[in-house]
Amino acid sequence: MLLTAVSDVRVACEQDTPVVAMLRPRGGPAQWVLGQRYELAPWVPAREYVDTYGNLCQRFVVPRGEMRILVTSEAEVAEQAAVDVHASFTPVDRLPDDALMYMLQSRYCPSDSMEDQAREIVKGCAPGYAQAARICQWIHGKLEYRYGVSDASTCARQTLADGAGVCRDFAHVGVALSRALHLPARFVVGYLYRLDPMDMHAWYEVFVGDRWYTFDPTQDKPRGGRIVVAYGRDATDVAFLSSYAPLEVTQMKVTVEASAAQPVPEAEPA
Amino acid sequence: MLLTAVSDVRVACEQDTPVVAMLRPRGGPAQWVLGQRYELAPWVPAREYVDTYGNLCQRFVVPRGEMRILVTSEAEVAEQAAVDVHASFTPVDRLPDDALMYMLQSRYCPSDSMEDQAREIVKGCAPGYAQAARICQWIHGKLEYRYGVSDASTCARQTLADGAGVCRDFAHVGVALSRALHLPARFVVGYLYRLDPMDMHAWYEVFVGDRWYTFDPTQDKPRGGRIVVAYGRDATDVAFLSSYAPLEVTQMKVTVEASAAQPVPEAEPA
Amino acid sequence: MLLTAVSDVRVACEQDTPVVAMLRPRGGPAQWVLGQRYELAPWVPAREYVDTYGNLCQRFVVPRGEMRILVTSEAEVAEQAAVDVHASFTPVDRLPDDALMYMLQSRYCPSDSMEDQAREIVKGCAPGYAQAARICQWIHGKLEYRYGVSDASTCARQTLADGAGVCRDFAHVGVALSRALHLPARFVVGYLYRLDPMDMHAWYEVFVGDRWYTFDPTQDKPRGGRIVVAYGRDATDVAFLSSYAPLEVTQMKVTVEASAAQPVPEAEPA
Amino acid sequence: MLLTAVSDVRVACEQDTPVVAMLRPRGGPAQWVLGQRYELAPWVPAREYVDTYGNLCQRFVVPRGEMRILVTSEAEVAEQAAVDVHASFTPVDRLPDDALMYMLQSRYCPSDSMEDQAREIVKGCAPGYAQAARICQWIHGKLEYRYGVSDASTCARQTLADGAGVCRDFAHVGVALSRALHLPARFVVGYLYRLDPMDMHAWYEVFVGDRWYTFDPTQDKPRGGRIVVAYGRDATDVAFLSSYAPLEVTQMKVTVEASAAQPVPEAEPA
Repeated sequence: MLLTAVSDVRVACEQDTPVVAMLRPRGGPAQWVLGQRYELAPWVPAREYVDTYGNLCQRFVVPRGEMRILVTSEAEVAEQAAVDVHASFTPVDRLPDDALMYMLQSRYCPSDSMEDQAREIVKGCAPGYAQAARICQWIHGKLEYRYGVSDASTCARQTLADGAGVCRDFAHVGVALSRALHLPARFVVGYLYRLDPMDMHAWYEVFVGDRWYTFDPTQDKPRGGRIVVAYGRDATDVAFLSSYAPLEVTQMKVTVEASAAQPVPEAEPA
Repeated sequence: MLLTAVSDVRVACEQDTPVVAMLRPRGGPAQWVLGQRYELAPWVPAREYVDTYGNLCQRFVVPRGEMRILVTSEAEVAEQAAVDVHASFTPVDRLPDDALMYMLQSRYCPSDSMEDQAREIVKGCAPGYAQAARICQWIHGKLEYRYGVSDASTCARQTLADGAGVCRDFAHVGVALSRALHLPARFVVGYLYRLDPMDMHAWYEVFVGDRWYTFDPTQDKPRGGRIVVAYGRDATDVAFLSSYAPLEVTQMKVTVEASAAQPVPEAEPA
Repeated sequence: MLLTAVSDVRVACEQDTPVVAMLRPRGGPAQWVLGQRYELAPWVPAREYVDTYGNLCQRFVVPRGEMRILVTSEAEVAEQAAVDVHASFTPVDRLPDDALMYMLQSRYCPSDSMEDQAREIVKGCAPGYAQAARICQWIHGKLEYRYGVSDASTCARQTLADGAGVCRDFAHVGVALSRALHLPARFVVGYLYRLDPMDMHAWYEVFVGDRWYTFDPTQDKPRGGRIVVAYGRDATDVAFLSSYAPLEVTQMKVTVEASAAQPVPEAEPA
Repeated sequence: MLLTAVSDVRVACEQDTPVVAMLRPRGGPAQWVLGQRYELAPWVPAREYVDTYGNLCQRFVVPRGEMRILVTSEAEVAEQAAVDVHASFTPVDRLPDDALMYMLQSRYCPSDSMEDQAREIVKGCAPGYAQAARICQWIHGKLEYRYGVSDASTCARQTLADGAGVCRDFAHVGVALSRALHLPARFVVGYLYRLDPMDMHAWYEVFVGDRWYTFDPTQDKPRGGRIVVAYGRDATDVAFLSSYAPLEVTQMKVTVEASAAQPVPEAEPA
């Protein structure tokens, strides 16, 4: 399906402020980027690089005052999330090299202390996809989606203690519990069609069998319609805006729309 | 300056044909990609990856019959090419690691046999930018720009013997002569504003002092207004379309326009 | 100076246990690896890959029972640590792309909450090396080196609260305080000549001016004689052994010796 | 099997000469580097980096006069070369991204003009391993191994015309013919146990099914006992020594020995 996502961000600062933004999705196995616009107003010189996860990162200096960052992404994505209840656990020694780092604990996912709880949750599940799916369902059932409980410093353990959080917290819990079972798990930020209320979203992926599968504990069942903006070990790696002086985000308005996938008229005369 | 480049490519084949395309510019130190559209008609699943040079590459299968590939790239680029006649030769042992591969000979740039000629051309020049500029001017003065002399197998040595060629050949000669003097040189494909007749274009960059400088022997003086689509060691690495079964390019129409750099209305109400 | 470091590790496990080891130093700007031996007894098939930080990582399965991992590394390293009290703060927008990730908070370095304390410590210092050096001295003066206070879950904030820790904890505090001032800081594990008592060691590096400088808050002044084994954002990334089933390290014996730097007799007849 | 390879290289130059050497094998899926020594006499500062193919490269300046480079590599490698006559052709659109560059023509492998000949050679073979094996056998049968026919500028087409060459030329022909059939092929330099006369050796690998297979047209049947030193698109990428001023290699003495694979006494008391 063809999705058009718009992030309309407004920021304000009292001094020139260097930032690194992650707002441009890259094409990959799961999505084709059909169209993009990345506008800065006022216009300032900006540069782009690829980080160690393969994400596109934009560097620029927000000038003193106000700035608008308007990013439109049009992408062809899968309408259904891939599901394979029979995908089995991949023994650690057979994992691809680049999946290994997604088994390490990280800032918001202190998985080293969570194995007992993870084992309890997946009791009776076959190792692999079934475990990953059970963890995701468990989070969906046990945690309450509520703003204001968590903040930028809340880790998965704290969210489990609080019993509530937002998409980012749910994803951190999913990542941490998966890693505790030696299932590589990576944090994802992006857009989800028909998310309500609409906003940037966070979910995660787990490597089982021979590929990554999407899990989103804010939803009651697997859903496609996702544009991935960035992958990381947790939210630290994929902030949509990292600023290196005080900066206020005064607006973050997101819209996601589906459109017919007829990108170009074939009959148009050359 | 803000440029909008459009490549409107039509291809035809008699069997399903896998291709790798390089038609999507990436943001980098020299350019900001403001807008993009990458359309395939008929629509087919496509994937994107980053090659070892950092170029974005698109993989898909052209279905039997005809296909249109329509790529629009809007980029903010430098209006003037950087020039520094005093930039000095960087001793090989102080070059950045990733510049070293651009000193090796390659398919179309057999630089190993061209040192004598290169030394002759740059006689009297200070090592560094002055040498690189002299080589570029020499090519511009000595070689005739003429279609039909060269083909896909023509290397720099052949072009020197022929005394004529097109932009790709001129760039190969520049790259080969530069490398013969131990100046790292890389081949570039992209768009040049006001190129006449308009088409995809090829030029090259040379590393002197502490950075890459643009050289374009088809032009009589340094010019900005360039969108880089891909870097490589020579034309082999940066074909806009590599096909793995017979494929005919029935149309390759390029336009490049400049526009005012006012990307987004600042006053628009949030 | 030429150092020979030996890590003699013995491990035991009750089932076949996949591990990732980081025990092989790589050559780089700061060290030349003259000799290496990496022995596993019993011998098992092992593979090596390069992680996203450029570290060499060894993968193998420790068979049920006992295993010895004996790694000898001979490297030519700087006798003095580089010091430049005048190296100035690099504005964030001029940092190299690959330094940016070392400004993010991480598992053991929650730098986001430590800016006030960092500012207090460096009061009066010129931005840059002087700040970094002050932080290092402050840690050396304030924290007590003591085993048993910290464990594998202790982060920099906890160490500051405890007032004590080991080399790893000291380094985490240094990294976190540096990042809080927007100084890129990376965690290092390796060997230090004449460390007492001898063991694997941890310190950190800070990017100021145009390069990385070594800081080691366990020492009272800058010291060279270091073999770097691995770089990371914190200890998570550079464990000398990550195991994916219960594994006991029954011995970790380290020796580091200096030798004359005459690697090969020049006069030997060909 | 455990092999110990020694390259004892002596060079001479009349001015300080920067070089890039490729003499240190890296661990990988196919080999475990048990021991290494890399000695320079006289000792000079040297650095190491990883090139775009993943090879370790050593940079240093050979001082005016003579220098000895003595590299010892001890590696555990497969005793038998993997063979799978049933491994089938991988359609281009299913090749891994990083195999694609090994289908491009290169300096010594102008595969674009060789498809007809390649098709003729493999007539009747099933697409895939069988084709690759046929090409290798064909080269072994048709070309004469003879020194003095080729030089540093000889490409695969020339070798076919000459009907003779050395290991490097044979490998170039194999690479070029394989690529002409859309079989990804990469050039390999390294050591082969019991090569006669002993020297650094060159062969190639072809990607079929889901992995790379070794082919060596200098041999009459598949043989293991190989230490890979470097991979590349052809000999350009993997010169054991690239020099950037006149440099004479006055000696290149290679020995390869097999030893018992008992790397460390298990019984040694801790």
